[in-house]
Amino acid sequence: MAMLSSLAPFKAACPFLGRTQTSTLRTLCTNASPRFPAISVLTERATKCPVMGPALNVRGKELVAGYASVAGVQDVAQIHKDQGVSVPAGATVEMCPHASAARAAARTARDLASAAAKKPDDSAQAAAAAGCPFHKAGAPIPKDHPAIPAAAASSASAPSTSTPARAGFNYEAFYVNELDKKHQDKSYRYFNNINRLAAKFPIAHTSNVKEEVQVWCSNDYLGMGSNPVVVETMHRALDKYGHGAGGTRNIAGNGQMHLGLEQELAALHRKPAALVFSSCYVANDATLSTLGSKLPGCVFFSDTMNHASMIQGMRHSTAKRVLFKHNDMADLESKLAQYPKETPKVIAFESVYSMCGSIGPIKEICDLAEQYGALTFLDEVHAVGLYGPRGAGVAEHLDYDAHKAAGDSPLPIKGSVMDRVDIITGTLGKAYGAVGGYIAGSDDMVDMIRSYAPGFIFTTSLPPVTVAGAHASVVYQKEYVGDRQLKQVNVREAKRRFAEIDIPVVPGPSHIVPVLVGDAALAKAASDKLLAEHNIYVQSINYPTVAVGEERLRITVTPRHTAEQLDILVRAVDSVFTDLQINRLSDWIKAGGRAGVGMGDAEPEPIWNDEQLALGTPAAPRMLRDGQRSFVDPRAVTVARGRFNTLLGPVTSLATSATHTKAIDGKALAGMKMRTGAAPLLREDIPVPPPDVAASA
Amino acid sequence: MAMLSSLAPFKAACPFLGRTQTSTLRTLCTNASPRFPAISVLTERATKCPVMGPALNVRGKELVAGYASVAGVQDVAQIHKDQGVSVPAGATVEMCPHASAARAAARTARDLASAAAKKPDDSAQAAAAAGCPFHKAGAPIPKDHPAIPAAAASSASAPSTSTPARAGFNYEAFYVNELDKKHQDKSYRYFNNINRLAAKFPIAHTSNVKEEVQVWCSNDYLGMGSNPVVVETMHRALDKYGHGAGGTRNIAGNGQMHLGLEQELAALHRKPAALVFSSCYVANDATLSTLGSKLPGCVFFSDTMNHASMIQGMRHSTAKRVLFKHNDMADLESKLAQYPKETPKVIAFESVYSMCGSIGPIKEICDLAEQYGALTFLDEVHAVGLYGPRGAGVAEHLDYDAHKAAGDSPLPIKGSVMDRVDIITGTLGKAYGAVGGYIAGSDDMVDMIRSYAPGFIFTTSLPPVTVAGAHASVVYQKEYVGDRQLKQVNVREAKRRFAEIDIPVVPGPSHIVPVLVGDAALAKAASDKLLAEHNIYVQSINYPTVAVGEERLRITVTPRHTAEQLDILVRAVDSVFTDLQINRLSDWIKAGGRAGVGMGDAEPEPIWNDEQLALGTPAAPRMLRDGQRSFVDPRAVTVARGRFNTLLGPVTSLATSATHTKAIDGKALAGMKMRTGAAPLLREDIPVPPPDVAASA
Repeated sequence: MAMLSSLAPFKAACPFLGRTQTSTLRTLCTNASPRFPAISVLTERATKCPVMGPALNVRGKELVAGYASVAGVQDVAQIHKDQGVSVPAGATVEMCPHASAARAAARTARDLASAAAKKPDDSAQAAAAAGCPFHKAGAPIPKDHPAIPAAAASSASAPSTSTPARAGFNYEAFYVNELDKKHQDKSYRYFNNINRLAAKFPIAHTSNVKEEVQVWCSNDYLGMGSNPVVVETMHRALDKYGHGAGGTRNIAGNGQMHLGLEQELAALHRKPAALVFSSCYVANDATLSTLGSKLPGCVFFSDTMNHASMIQGMRHSTAKRVLFKHNDMADLESKLAQYPKETPKVIAFESVYSMCGSIGPIKEICDLAEQYGALTFLDEVHAVGLYGPRGAGVAEHLDYDAHKAAGDSPLPIKGSVMDRVDIITGTLGKAYGAVGGYIAGSDDMVDMIRSYAPGFIFTTSLPPVTVAGAHASVVYQKEYVGDRQLKQVNVREAKRRFAEIDIPVVPGPSHIVPVLVGDAALAKAASDKLLAEHNIYVQSINYPTVAVGEERLRITVTPRHTAEQLDILVRAVDSVFTDLQINRLSDWIKAGGRAGVGMGDAEPEPIWNDEQLALGTPAAPRMLRDGQRSFVDPRAVTVARGRFNTLLGPVTSLATSATHTKAIDGKALAGMKMRTGAAPLLREDIPVPPPDVAASA
Repeated sequence: MAMLSSLAPFKAACPFLGRTQTSTLRTLCTNASPRFPAISVLTERATKCPVMGPALNVRGKELVAGYASVAGVQDVAQIHKDQGVSVPAGATVEMCPHASAARAAARTARDLASAAAKKPDDSAQAAAAAGCPFHKAGAPIPKDHPAIPAAAASSASAPSTSTPARAGFNYEAFYVNELDKKHQDKSYRYFNNINRLAAKFPIAHTSNVKEEVQVWCSNDYLGMGSNPVVVETMHRALDKYGHGAGGTRNIAGNGQMHLGLEQELAALHRKPAALVFSSCYVANDATLSTLGSKLPGCVFFSDTMNHASMIQGMRHSTAKRVLFKHNDMADLESKLAQYPKETPKVIAFESVYSMCGSIGPIKEICDLAEQYGALTFLDEVHAVGLYGPRGAGVAEHLDYDAHKAAGDSPLPIKGSVMDRVDIITGTLGKAYGAVGGYIAGSDDMVDMIRSYAPGFIFTTSLPPVTVAGAHASVVYQKEYVGDRQLKQVNVREAKRRFAEIDIPVVPGPSHIVPVLVGDAALAKAASDKLLAEHNIYVQSINYPTVAVGEERLRITVTPRHTAEQLDILVRAVDSVFTDLQINRLSDWIKAGGRAGVGMGDAEPEPIWNDEQLALGTPAAPRMLRDGQRSFVDPRAVTVARGRFNTLLGPVTSLATSATHTKAIDGKALAGMKMRTGAAPLLREDIPVPPPDVAASA
């Protein structure tokens, strides 16, 4: 609190400091600016003050560096590290010995101010400016100083906004107030600056290109964003078609790339048709709002854990929305039974719920839908690419063998769960490593949404280059099951390792590994500490994304994380739990449990069973070790390339696309043995797996 | 009608034909399938019939070709062309001599059916199947035949949907009915298959990669989608960061590319902050719905010509929405005056209205907003990149000289129109040739939207590669004014040429060239004819995008269209107007005018004035001629490249990025003389302009 209490005398004088709550100021000054992580949010604000800003700019790096030494949490940690200072659990940055640097910086600002002192043009504003370390008293204070409005709101004498003389409501003060609420309930979001490196997956650099961290929370679940055939296809598409689509689907923005992807997605789900949107947020919003507003008297039945995009879509339709308890079929049935069979109904639910990792009872919901005359709307966003023999999602996974046997056929398997679901939505932005979303279903349903949904009609379509990358990814994953299998093996291993050291993981049958923390401030502190002290990036998940008291670190394990990286993660989480005195599993058991942790429930069977993972056979997937290259399946690459033969020409040899096959053919291997520059590994080169992986089989 | 009347006897028997209106059938059979333009929509439907579909698949290409010979409008036109058949104005495809091929195809289907005849499993269905040329009577008819539901709806005896035994409401029949409405009012959209070629801008290929057409309706207004520094930057970003962002902005999807673009956009508009969204549809929707739902008692004042995305955003907020007449300040003021000054108000409007080319009175709206205490929300989607010395839009253009003089400074120009607008929204998908949208405004406003808008928070962020391409484009256009100028010169020339031959263009001061047709069927026929007979793609714009009776061809002229291409366009439009007997300007004058055409109003002054275009000086931009390369400004390229030095490393020589500078350095010129493979031209190489262009100066 050292720095903040030294500022206290100025709060009364400076309108910016005065109107801002102390708790908010503390957050602003202890959090790194999302844009310039070397300085605090407060310092970034100061650079924008028309009085203080120019002073900061003029003085250049020394002054900003002065603030930065206390403001940037990562810098503080680095200073601690360099000087061998150990910080007690729960310590805040103000308690650190380097807080004196803050006071020095404040003094510098004040000295700057008095040295350049001139008569300001307005005595009231001058008083404010002179007293505030973020103001240089000498400069003339413009009428539209951003700090003025809130103070003026009570005195009603100064101009009330940053634009000249606007009457009425004070919009800027309103925004500040809304933001204060977020600071108050700890739901204000600070974005980390994470730049995932294609050649070093799962490594990213931070705002400093030389500072590298391990990413353990990305939804690029399989690393497909840097898969060589994806990157190669995009290079080729970019050269041929340039960047943007250049229009809506109806006006100049519809091409063979778009149509080809939609055909691929329809075939993936064995549905007659599919439609691609800017994102799956838009797909869910547009489809549900169109259905709800078109179907006469429509009633939605919505799982309480549904994603925001579905909730918004249902709201936007203005149709009635009935919530049913998460995955509770008795509750759903009792609510369905309250409406006549003839009433149009839509049951909206997910396959994998992304924050807890539970899985929706798809088959049972289809049974109820048929019985009560409802449509089924299934969001497979966190499942496509990850479940099923072809990556079509959990609905496909439930009839694994039948879908595997049916191979490439686009025709429905009658009576299969996937066939019984009316509308499937998926994303291209997670397991497929791209961007965009889609729906799949009957021809007429898709055509109706295509014809009526404003969110589809009135927007520029996705760039052909992006669509090409997504398409290559879908095909690759459809043809090659190994990434999906290895991911699940690694997830099992991560869960086993955490259990060994009493770290609480919310139980679930899917690939999500939610580590329970149970407190918003602790969850953020744990995430910050992992990043600053261990170079591990796991974002904390707080309210409103999860319930208050159920805050967590949501860890995503990919097939390309190595055994050594997992070791580092497990040790780091262990150490942070100790440092911050976060509840372990045994603590939760004593406390009666929370969020499914320590509540005595049996750990659910993983949806990928041992047989599907080929465990115990020579084909069992094995976690990579550092230095190994991940396997890229040459057959899947060939099939994916083949999809673009007509548009981009065949890739017949290295020579034909010498500039862009580099990613695939780094070592210029003959034939189709694929390597990337940094990662790929031919399966036959994989050495004996580490014993702990073998044990989990 | 030949083909359709030959089908008449089967309508009673076949449930699909029976439930579908004749007019819809006609449309289905005369329009090319969006997926497979070589066949009709009806044929595509037939391939999905569980009875007829397999027959079509088994018989392969001959049968499909039989249908295609009448179904694909382009094929028909080609046949006509090949055989020297001239088609009278207003002729429909059924009248053509090749309709016999349709009858032959129908006979083939029937022959197939009787040859394979077997006892079907249900006599009612068998009757239907046997009578319908789209059914092969011999095959067993599945219970979930998609043709059954509508027929069953009246008899209530057959299964009612394509999924087994669902009770209640008939969803599939409902979709069909909604689609029929679209066919009825001619608002059903058939997507053309247009693949714009980077190396041949503005040329695209159709579904046939060898069939090339000129594109005259894309919103890639400047050709930035294929600008060499854009493409180069994307190749480099792709190699470094791969494809997708891998998460939401809050979870692993926020990197320096995103932050850098937002900083660039904020500086472009001289605002403190900017925020990027998946699209400007999402930006408008998310921002307006958040403002409207958060601001207590908010009232929206909305121009009647506002874009769908704004309308949806205001609706979704559930706040009150007051419409004011298009660009009518008296109407707006009278409506503002009805509310207390303290009531939060948002005036939502556009700078360039894209379908008519009118321009909003931004300054006057700012005056009213200040007087009545309203926020201004300005959509510059069709203006950014195209107006202003730096491409910041019309608000910048209104203080052209001041903004030009202020150069690179990100600080606001106090009292300028752009400074007075509270919230500016723009797109990266049109003049910048990329994808995505954004808002710019005050720090706290942007932070509030960032913190509260679900459409921003809960969606995967744009791929770094896409963001990089957009960023390079914004910088290039900020640094180089020549593309904007040449575009306007070409627009003037196009309007002049159309006026010469009495073609009615809706008057306006912007770059939009709306050619009035005034009838939905005629507008579509004109668009189809331009494509099929002249290899010119201009999409027709029908209701609900424009009012009934104001249907038009919306032509977009870019700086990269050549004089020869314009000649071809003008001749083609002339010929199509004659062939289809579409009203000329003189006809509209006689009829009293419509949509601003022939109504006696003076043609408004172009917003880019002669001085801003440097007309009459040696620097005047000159329309390209065929074979010339378009100019790429080396200084702007250098500045754009410089923005990526930290992340991607400097481009110091050809050797450092040999694989991806090919696009820029095609001829490996020393230094910074830029050329693309197909188009660029150094300014000093441009020969004397054609006389008609010089005349327009």
